[in-house]
Amino acid sequence: MAKQDRAIRTRQTILMAAAQAFEKYGYQAATITEILKSADVTKGALYFHFPSKEDLALGVLDAQAPPQTVPDQALKLQELIDLGMLFSHRLQTSLLTRAGVRLSMDQQAHGLDRSGPFLRWQEATHHLLTRAKHNGELLPHVNPTETADLYVAAFAGTQAVSQTLTDYRDLQRRHITLQQHILPSIAAPSVLTALDLTPERAERLSLLDPVG
Amino acid sequence: MAKQDRAIRTRQTILMAAAQAFEKYGYQAATITEILKSADVTKGALYFHFPSKEDLALGVLDAQAPPQTVPDQALKLQELIDLGMLFSHRLQTSLLTRAGVRLSMDQQAHGLDRSGPFLRWQEATHHLLTRAKHNGELLPHVNPTETADLYVAAFAGTQAVSQTLTDYRDLQRRHITLQQHILPSIAAPSVLTALDLTPERAERLSLLDPVG
Repeated sequence: MAKQDRAIRTRQTILMAAAQAFEKYGYQAATITEILKSADVTKGALYFHFPSKEDLALGVLDAQAPPQTVPDQALKLQELIDLGMLFSHRLQTSLLTRAGVRLSMDQQAHGLDRSGPFLRWQEATHHLLTRAKHNGELLPHVNPTETADLYVAAFAGTQAVSQTLTDYRDLQRRHITLQQHILPSIAAPSVLTALDLTPERAERLSLLDPVG
Repeated sequence: MAKQDRAIRTRQTILMAAAQAFEKYGYQAATITEILKSADVTKGALYFHFPSKEDLALGVLDAQAPPQTVPDQALKLQELIDLGMLFSHRLQTSLLTRAGVRLSMDQQAHGLDRSGPFLRWQEATHHLLTRAKHNGELLPHVNPTETADLYVAAFAGTQAVSQTLTDYRDLQRRHITLQQHILPSIAAPSVLTALDLTPERAERLSLLDPVG
């Protein structure tokens, strides 16, 4: 294995251990000692990749960036729906994604800048909504910045409630319900009827996703 | 002071100390020792009111029940909006409410049943939506159970993002944006134009609220 591959793999091992520790103890109570022990790497390797607990947390937070694997669609609102479907799938299957999302919602993580993931999701959503607006998919009054903010916040809450009440088992259904309540307020009627919100689409999309 | 008043006051003092500890350390890391110290009550008094850390947490969680102080309205959708406006105000002004909400969103609070507040808010929202439906305020397809679930989750996320990005300074604005994105999908058009979503209404409502 080339030196660079090994470094990437070590970094990933450390991130997984950090994710587990943050999941288990929360940001405040998690310790580097614990992460070192469960990652089974040298202190030097850990500090090379992540000089502090905050850097470890930022690494885990990064793991919940918007998926890049969503296929292009003529309707940008469909792409936005697909993004939510794929991410809902990741929350059910990927420990790293789950840990990243929970960390970003950890209101007790004092001193940790948790704004990154929210801002990145707002940017990705804003980008798709702006293109949708350009395509004439949106009602005339829609402000992509406001709507993007709202989407990110509403999805964040949806995942949190789904995790609390059903450990994510109802997340795809809740995400579809969310879309059914927002899209009629923002989409042109002719576009509305062309959007696919079926659970079958969510299933198909999740097969495209390599993250485990 | 009558014995009962003193007991109520002691209970409240303990709850405030618990709220502060949960805010500072999160559920996992907070300790009864710390709470005892900052409440400055006897061990006996604390255990009389709250036999365990879990009971303390459930007490704090209870503090974010839907406000009872919202005035009756002919339009039940207006009452729902008012409830959100008043609660947004409480999140900005009441430590106990804030601690309760954060605790309910603490995905690291293993072993703590955090479902209570979500279920109580779903019930209160469901009740108002059912009455709104009965009044003909809703579009025919609306399912009060689904919409209530969605409202609670979307609001939970809205407060979390607002806290993370602006320490609740933009919560009233975000709450209004949320309503602007959901109401057109569920309300009859004639009702939509009669609803008051202005920041001035939120201001007036907050004056009604005795919680400090």
